[in-house]
Amino acid sequence: MRTLNNTDILKLPKLYRNNLINSISGFKSANLIGSVSENNHYNLAIFSSVVHMGSNPPLLGFITRPHSVPRHTYENIKATGFYTINHVPAKYAQQAHQTSAKYDIEVDEFEVCGFTKLFSDMHSVPYVQESNIRIGLKLEEEYHIKANDTILVIGSVIELIIPDGCLEEDGYLDLANAESVTINGLDGYLAPQKIDRYTYARPHQPAKSITK
Amino acid sequence: MRTLNNTDILKLPKLYRNNLINSISGFKSANLIGSVSENNHYNLAIFSSVVHMGSNPPLLGFITRPHSVPRHTYENIKATGFYTINHVPAKYAQQAHQTSAKYDIEVDEFEVCGFTKLFSDMHSVPYVQESNIRIGLKLEEEYHIKANDTILVIGSVIELIIPDGCLEEDGYLDLANAESVTINGLDGYLAPQKIDRYTYARPHQPAKSITK
Repeated sequence: MRTLNNTDILKLPKLYRNNLINSISGFKSANLIGSVSENNHYNLAIFSSVVHMGSNPPLLGFITRPHSVPRHTYENIKATGFYTINHVPAKYAQQAHQTSAKYDIEVDEFEVCGFTKLFSDMHSVPYVQESNIRIGLKLEEEYHIKANDTILVIGSVIELIIPDGCLEEDGYLDLANAESVTINGLDGYLAPQKIDRYTYARPHQPAKSITK
Repeated sequence: MRTLNNTDILKLPKLYRNNLINSISGFKSANLIGSVSENNHYNLAIFSSVVHMGSNPPLLGFITRPHSVPRHTYENIKATGFYTINHVPAKYAQQAHQTSAKYDIEVDEFEVCGFTKLFSDMHSVPYVQESNIRIGLKLEEEYHIKANDTILVIGSVIELIIPDGCLEEDGYLDLANAESVTINGLDGYLAPQKIDRYTYARPHQPAKSITK
């Protein structure tokens, strides 16, 4: 067991602290965000900060830095108002990680990292063909986070392209069956194995296993 | 393959839509948030929306509804300024899920759901003894999300209690070794299995596997 207080944490070497603090929030979503610039340059970048904001209306958020690596994504979303979120499938984890490299704006990460563009009629931003779960979004709101100069970008879901075999009768989308991965820290990729689903919990009616 | 647009999604039955939309952001963090009221009532509630906001300073965020189930957590944090975030370990997934029941404010979820309080000298909010990764936080900022009347709560890490065996030389905290779980949708719990870690990606130096 090791205990670190805020002073200990601030004294850690930068890379060590980055690895550690990026791990402590728990397992993260692994998504490729697709976008396109006004000059028609396509962009694809991995994000581990996509978070569920609400189901009605369906809203997803993600955190970005305005003046750091993935700014192409943010600038493109601001310019066009649309973007796609595509789950990273286990087989493509290494290629997905490669999209985090600081490519120039003219470079199409779909091409250099080996992903195929899939277009829809709803908007002009490509999805990732290799992903099993693909989400089309329209920019709704953004919040500037004063504490560390990041931005929370919120979009509404305007399209959802999902595989049939992963969708259960009650709307539960089985992400392990979809071969989606999860991220640990900055660079760890894992494939989750189902433990169980539990029934809705009530104070006097404890949650039970949902057995098939 | 199934494609749903925004109109299709809004027409889905409520529970079906909740299950589906809660699944699409990808795998989520599984955390028990501990808090205490001004009248010394302890609270413990599961959250799947804890997200990394930044490493320097170390900041974590989570999304809550002001007028919904886990409002005790939010009210307590506002009242005292402190809270704990504790990873859900695989063995305790069902008990952790049970904390989502709508217990009265007087009910101590640590007790009724079978978790042990662990106190530190840094603040007066208990950690979860059964969790392997435990984080103490101080409330820093909150943002009211207009799009759906939720709140993003941001706290700075003031204490970190982690097991020795899970910490690698470069600060990477191996969450699979810590037996932390991930959440799929509203009620699915999974144990992630490591695929690999990859080196820092550069445009002309593709990321490689970090092999031991």
